[in-house]
Amino acid sequence: MPELRQNLATKEWVIIAKERAKRPKDPSSPPRERRKALPFDPSCPFCPGNESKTPEAILTLSGERGWKIRVVPNKFAALWPSGDRLRHMDGVKRWMPGVGFHEVIIETPLHDAFIALRGDEEIHDLLQVYLERYRSISQDKRIELITLFKNHGEQAGTSLPHPHSQLVATPVVPSHIRHRLEEAMRHFDNHGECVFCAMLREEIRYQERIILEDDYFVAFVPYAAFSPFHTWILPKRHVASFGDTAPDEIGSLAKTLKAVLAKLYYGLDDPDFNYVIRSVPSDGRGIRSFHWYISIVVRMTKAAGFELGSGMFINPALPEEDAGFLREVKV
Amino acid sequence: MPELRQNLATKEWVIIAKERAKRPKDPSSPPRERRKALPFDPSCPFCPGNESKTPEAILTLSGERGWKIRVVPNKFAALWPSGDRLRHMDGVKRWMPGVGFHEVIIETPLHDAFIALRGDEEIHDLLQVYLERYRSISQDKRIELITLFKNHGEQAGTSLPHPHSQLVATPVVPSHIRHRLEEAMRHFDNHGECVFCAMLREEIRYQERIILEDDYFVAFVPYAAFSPFHTWILPKRHVASFGDTAPDEIGSLAKTLKAVLAKLYYGLDDPDFNYVIRSVPSDGRGIRSFHWYISIVVRMTKAAGFELGSGMFINPALPEEDAGFLREVKV
Repeated sequence: MPELRQNLATKEWVIIAKERAKRPKDPSSPPRERRKALPFDPSCPFCPGNESKTPEAILTLSGERGWKIRVVPNKFAALWPSGDRLRHMDGVKRWMPGVGFHEVIIETPLHDAFIALRGDEEIHDLLQVYLERYRSISQDKRIELITLFKNHGEQAGTSLPHPHSQLVATPVVPSHIRHRLEEAMRHFDNHGECVFCAMLREEIRYQERIILEDDYFVAFVPYAAFSPFHTWILPKRHVASFGDTAPDEIGSLAKTLKAVLAKLYYGLDDPDFNYVIRSVPSDGRGIRSFHWYISIVVRMTKAAGFELGSGMFINPALPEEDAGFLREVKV
Repeated sequence: MPELRQNLATKEWVIIAKERAKRPKDPSSPPRERRKALPFDPSCPFCPGNESKTPEAILTLSGERGWKIRVVPNKFAALWPSGDRLRHMDGVKRWMPGVGFHEVIIETPLHDAFIALRGDEEIHDLLQVYLERYRSISQDKRIELITLFKNHGEQAGTSLPHPHSQLVATPVVPSHIRHRLEEAMRHFDNHGECVFCAMLREEIRYQERIILEDDYFVAFVPYAAFSPFHTWILPKRHVASFGDTAPDEIGSLAKTLKAVLAKLYYGLDDPDFNYVIRSVPSDGRGIRSFHWYISIVVRMTKAAGFELGSGMFINPALPEEDAGFLREVKV
């Protein structure tokens, strides 16, 4: 029989229905293969030599043989950096100018590289660049939330295959985020403790959903994971903002993220996925009730009418089994 | 410059960024074509003659030449009808048995039919069946929310092409729904009026986002539409529950839904879409602050890392232009 599970931190319900995994698959969909590309594509705007095809770089990390990482404004930016954030209200019309930042982080000069299969240093550098941009944009008083994310593969919504991440900084706190903060605050009010710290302590005690852990970070499949292989990576230390990651934590975060992504690559044959860094809005930087984390969503199932209408997801996989599977994948 | 718009009813922000429509498209994706199928597929479990491939029908609407509509339990149901809804809580583990209903409404015996291109009577019958199942399941005290929806096309998450809708009845109110109810209630507290009624009045006054209207229903692209051609259909009369739709409203609803879906079909060459009936949870049936409606989501854009992480959407189309376009499509 299926079961409903509630995420302790977000209070969101999910339906865990393993029976649904037996649904007949579309016979026309080909079996999963690891993607193949060349290390250089002359038509790719992110490949070396084509730097003039992107807006001017905001930040460049250079090595002995040219740039290693480039951060550029998104050429088709959803938000623009100039302007004020004045709200206008006229009945149903409630709007403000689209001020903010929308940046692309080109992770490597290699068109076909996958960061989890490269050296430790490369993912370490990438996280440092994330942090540098996060901290720099946090200074802008107009910004309320910074979202760092990566779309990997077509099902994950990427339009260019060259490895890149993105940063979107918005002048509002989306209601989705506000509701999660409120839930976390309510838990703190009732228990005097960060709900994510409580969850972490329990997950470490049970062990059954842990993928890996070290002194600083834990990767696990949440008890109420909303899709197969959904993974959270949390710092063990209570810290609300990604921007407050300590220098001694970065190495561990790099190793953890790399290992989880490599396990997905080898275990699931290079699946499409998104990851997102969920961090507290600017004005909550030091709060005791929220805890930043990385959420990884493997795109194996599609959100359909039920998910759109109810906000609830149906997960045809058991989180304990997914975690067990990923634990065993050798990288 | 992009702009941020806030939906008056849900308080959700969306980024309207027409510039993003200029992004290069994947050259490998083929141009849109209307789908083709045969009127009968011997391997389809929903085609006539294959009735034994589905669980036994809960409701059958018959005509002179056999059944016209069949409602059957989903063979791979996400929720099961027997059991109690006792909640269990043990730290991070918060769960309950997956009790509820998951039904499939087979809309027609014809494998290749599209309801919006058929006679008025067929969509009228379908809505009557929706209502009958909605009202019947509402009687079950274990059920808190009933979601009726349709997934049309692969991008919309359907696994079988034979025209069908679904009903999922959950023993919980998902937090997404609760937050929307709370927003609507706050508006009522502040203004003494249903926020959807207010929105409707303003949309009718402005006219610029109206697709069509008659005495009973209005179809429009919301001011803060979260994706291209996103459409809401609302009853003009204040009514919180779809189950309380009046007999004289059904004919108008059938005509309105049919016309909007036909406009999408002819104007956008049979796009993949979802629609969902958003109705109040069982225990709020008569409330003055919520208003039921149909939300139609055309699946032209993909939710990626930003949407997953922030709950905010980027719409590369202008709602006023989308409404103008659909207004002009002849059906």
